[in-house]
Amino acid sequence: MLDDDGTAPASHWSPREIELLSTTVELLRQNGYDGLTVDAVASAARASKATVYRRWPSKSELVSAAFAEAVRPGPAPAPTGSLRDDLIQLGDLICQNAGAHMATIRAVLVEVSRNPGLNQELQRHFVDQRRALMHQILQRAVERGEIAADAVHDELWDLLPGYLAFRFLIPGDPPTAQTVRALVDDIIVPSLLPRAQ
Amino acid sequence: MLDDDGTAPASHWSPREIELLSTTVELLRQNGYDGLTVDAVASAARASKATVYRRWPSKSELVSAAFAEAVRPGPAPAPTGSLRDDLIQLGDLICQNAGAHMATIRAVLVEVSRNPGLNQELQRHFVDQRRALMHQILQRAVERGEIAADAVHDELWDLLPGYLAFRFLIPGDPPTAQTVRALVDDIIVPSLLPRAQ
Repeated sequence: MLDDDGTAPASHWSPREIELLSTTVELLRQNGYDGLTVDAVASAARASKATVYRRWPSKSELVSAAFAEAVRPGPAPAPTGSLRDDLIQLGDLICQNAGAHMATIRAVLVEVSRNPGLNQELQRHFVDQRRALMHQILQRAVERGEIAADAVHDELWDLLPGYLAFRFLIPGDPPTAQTVRALVDDIIVPSLLPRAQ
Repeated sequence: MLDDDGTAPASHWSPREIELLSTTVELLRQNGYDGLTVDAVASAARASKATVYRRWPSKSELVSAAFAEAVRPGPAPAPTGSLRDDLIQLGDLICQNAGAHMATIRAVLVEVSRNPGLNQELQRHFVDQRRALMHQILQRAVERGEIAADAVHDELWDLLPGYLAFRFLIPGDPPTAQTVRALVDDIIVPSLLPRAQ
């Protein structure tokens, strides 16, 4: 769930639990979902298996919790007062976080497609949070009169985060600050402004 | 390598080899890269291990060949005579192929990030081929005078295929014919046309 300001609430795990989840993500990135065992997590984190199983009764639940914790967003960036600068700020933030997030997402992507619980975590903690941020940015621009309410596209709301994520997911050509500016200034902002006839 | 018309040449494998590669992709999608063994491929395809190892001396080479064969593009779509229709046609084609391709890409994505050979196959057979198609479409539009040569963006040439791929890679909201049309008509074509001042 998102708070009203679009940020996720603080982690509800204890420091020791966060350590276990962080070890899980580390092993997940190294070995993939199929190569991960709860025993290996317990052993790497010097915990008893019973401690781990008590909190997360299955590998699927452990990985879901670890995934959600790993991609948990920080506080929402403060409004800048302009659509263009809000979008640049969001794009830059995605690029800053993506290195770590994308390695985690890559590691779970096969499993996500066959594991409904994990898919739900991906949707809730990654997709929905970015959707909420984009909607806030666009809503503020509508309220300021920068763009018309009907300029906001239900179909393509995630073009900015989605394209940047694609560039991080496929290795070889990660997006830069330049990419974010080209996307915002040449593509997204013009597509939202009223068009001259 | 691409032919002059942007299509990949016909497969250079024999029917029996294509069968082995197709079995490899099948097992890859089921078990992921780490869960795949050359022995399992030989056994599932009723081939001797020696037959498989003779052609592909390592698992990495077998998977690279299988990946390249699985995402090998068909013939390039015929030019329609307009930028808009060429882009719609390409977008629709990506959507048609993506179901199968994305499952394969998901299965190798973790391995791609740590295996330079496999990464090279992904770049050559998937990324570069789409780049060539986009460049041809844009080049034809420049030649017809539909868009200015400097409207073509080095940074964002893969926005159409990249965003569609993102929507297929993250389960839950695959793009439709409607997505392709919104992306082409509301975002990409307007961003390439001369802007009224």
